Amino acid sequence: MHVPSLIEKKRDGGVLSSEEIAEIIRAFTSGELPEYQMSALAMAIFFRGMSTEETASLTDAMLNSGGRLEWRTDARMRVDKHSTGGIGDKTSLILAPLLACDGLWVPMISGRGLGITGGTLDKLESIPGFRTGLSEPEIYRVVADVGCVMVGQTVSICPADKKLYALRDVTGTVPSIPLIVASIMSKKLAEGLNRLVLDVKHGAGAFMKTAEQAQMLADAMVGAGESLGVKTTAILHAMDEPLGESAGNALEVAECVSALQGGGPRDLVELTLELARAVSNSPREQLNAWLKDGTAWKKFQQMVAAQGGDVEALERLSEVQKAPFVAELKASQGGRVTKLDALTVGQVCVELGAGRSRATDPVDHAVGVDRIIKTGREVRAGDCLLRVHARTQTALDAALVKLGKGVEIS
Amino acid sequence: MHVPSLIEKKRDGGVLSSEEIAEIIRAFTSGELPEYQMSALAMAIFFRGMSTEETASLTDAMLNSGGRLEWRTDARMRVDKHSTGGIGDKTSLILAPLLACDGLWVPMISGRGLGITGGTLDKLESIPGFRTGLSEPEIYRVVADVGCVMVGQTVSICPADKKLYALRDVTGTVPSIPLIVASIMSKKLAEGLNRLVLDVKHGAGAFMKTAEQAQMLADAMVGAGESLGVKTTAILHAMDEPLGESAGNALEVAECVSALQGGGPRDLVELTLELARAVSNSPREQLNAWLKDGTAWKKFQQMVAAQGGDVEALERLSEVQKAPFVAELKASQGGRVTKLDALTVGQVCVELGAGRSRATDPVDHAVGVDRIIKTGREVRAGDCLLRVHARTQTALDAALVKLGKGVEIS
Repeated sequence: MHVPSLIEKKRDGGVLSSEEIAEIIRAFTSGELPEYQMSALAMAIFFRGMSTEETASLTDAMLNSGGRLEWRTDARMRVDKHSTGGIGDKTSLILAPLLACDGLWVPMISGRGLGITGGTLDKLESIPGFRTGLSEPEIYRVVADVGCVMVGQTVSICPADKKLYALRDVTGTVPSIPLIVASIMSKKLAEGLNRLVLDVKHGAGAFMKTAEQAQMLADAMVGAGESLGVKTTAILHAMDEPLGESAGNALEVAECVSALQGGGPRDLVELTLELARAVSNSPREQLNAWLKDGTAWKKFQQMVAAQGGDVEALERLSEVQKAPFVAELKASQGGRVTKLDALTVGQVCVELGAGRSRATDPVDHAVGVDRIIKTGREVRAGDCLLRVHARTQTALDAALVKLGKGVEIS
Repeated sequence: MHVPSLIEKKRDGGVLSSEEIAEIIRAFTSGELPEYQMSALAMAIFFRGMSTEETASLTDAMLNSGGRLEWRTDARMRVDKHSTGGIGDKTSLILAPLLACDGLWVPMISGRGLGITGGTLDKLESIPGFRTGLSEPEIYRVVADVGCVMVGQTVSICPADKKLYALRDVTGTVPSIPLIVASIMSKKLAEGLNRLVLDVKHGAGAFMKTAEQAQMLADAMVGAGESLGVKTTAILHAMDEPLGESAGNALEVAECVSALQGGGPRDLVELTLELARAVSNSPREQLNAWLKDGTAWKKFQQMVAAQGGDVEALERLSEVQKAPFVAELKASQGGRVTKLDALTVGQVCVELGAGRSRATDPVDHAVGVDRIIKTGREVRAGDCLLRVHARTQTALDAALVKLGKGVEIS
């Protein structure tokens, strides 16, 4: 393999073979192929893109760089969801137990939050005792016992992705669709799935700003998933206002508890049912019934218990994770709420400490925003538009000012 | 300086400031800026290009990464030429002493051959005893005494270029006009020049295949030179057939001796006079007179002597550097020579050992091709089209077969 020739091939718009891609990823992971060649290739891929076949080959090569969950032949059908990330997006916590009610297995390997995007692991860790770092034998046992598990990435999965992502992060090569697809899909396929649903967000509060970009990403992910034998469905959603009525770790878990007990904000429940239906065996009515009759809630409690979490704390999480400074943002005038900017909410959450600016930052589980009003609602002057939970008075004041600028009342 | 942001700026078509470029090159040279960031940036530059101001800033930053020749205030006007390389292009050896006759100083720092492009240093080293590795004090002394010197790059000049070129060579980022310009111009400007003429070749035997590409390169080099205070002129030339009648180290020196003694092939002499006129004080007639009356030849002998070369050997170089196997390629039919492919001659010279495949290869000074017929000439069957000088019979036979395919007679 003459690496400069392969870089030149991609640079000049050529197509790399699956053998060439496999060898590049193998050599990069082992350290034979130096980072300076990989970053130049990544930049050439940024400009030239990759065909569906190349993207599938890259995904497969990254998947093959490490281990994966291996299921027995008598295992049940495995399903999962991936979301490209959005403000207040907490569907995973409802979806996993709901699909487990359907007799499916949900071996959900998730990540931590970075920037304005929250992380499922951070949210779960606001439950006292909850362990996200299970060993592979523990993962198999919890899935077999409960039907779902929610854990962090095990060390053996996709080492090529870890190494490549770290390199992309410092070389201006993150926003490349084939590289994004291979990174996401290789980790998801390492779960040994049969079906996967993708929730691709677009808009001010999402990574993809336009529906067209989101469609390109969705098509590329579906192409890679289907090429590698996983039934893959993508659903696009606008992310202009936050999903549900809260953003922040414990605040979002509390909202999920409400939804699992048959309540919860309507947009959150609707989205969860839509995503669940894309991979479920049962119809939507049945899925909804499991949310309303306590079956999904019971399943969630079982999972929390199996992963060491304090089930008793779930229903009083707002006391367990309590921020000392809480205040409402009130409407300065009456009218219809025409905008509640998701990006502003996401940025404020990071500034409050609910999210991370850098991957090594800690997160504050108690802070965030809740009681967020939905756009289209009529308000009177003085009505609550949202409520801020902060660690300090200064942080509270700054958040209220910034959030006020993100709301428009006509 | 946040390097990923600078890479992203260039990736997205932005313009880097001269301060940003200076800091990038400083940090890259010192090792603070890792190679994987530099190669990603180089690939982004390949795709996005650079403005005239950016290219000048990059040239200046590379120039400032090391030392340069420093001339006293009473020094004479310094001039030089750079050629983008062509088959049989030996003008430097005639041009330097010719311009010295004009009272100019020519501190010519040259390179070695790589691939089909011959190197001035390799040619000069076919003269027994000739030293190309002079110290800086020696360079100043020879220029002051003779008016011209022809040496290799000193260690202190443009360390950023050495490091960046090595990186570009293995990351598919060589053929980028701003990077080529900065590499060439930084080294030339390190000579401390007042005037520079650029001989930009295009065609089958040149790096730039079309006149349009050559014009772009020429414009970019002139822009960088003028921005940095050097009067810079570019002249474009087609390189479809070899320049002059020989290609190969000692064979080319012998041809230059002939030209310096008032003879030599017409195309070689014409090109030399054209380039010389672009930077000379005296008119063309005077320059031509110095070639015809032995003044330039005497100057060349002085320079050879000053650099340790055996002046006596100059006029009998074909005996001193004698290849054991010599044979003519004869015309198989009569007619007009319509093609004598420069690229084929260049490739054969590399295969004979006159050039290098890799930078570390040695060169054979004696081998090559001479008595090359010019296109447009009428021949009869059996007339000599060219003559091959080889180290072995096998190499000779292979060269004759390959060269035969590069000639067309109508």
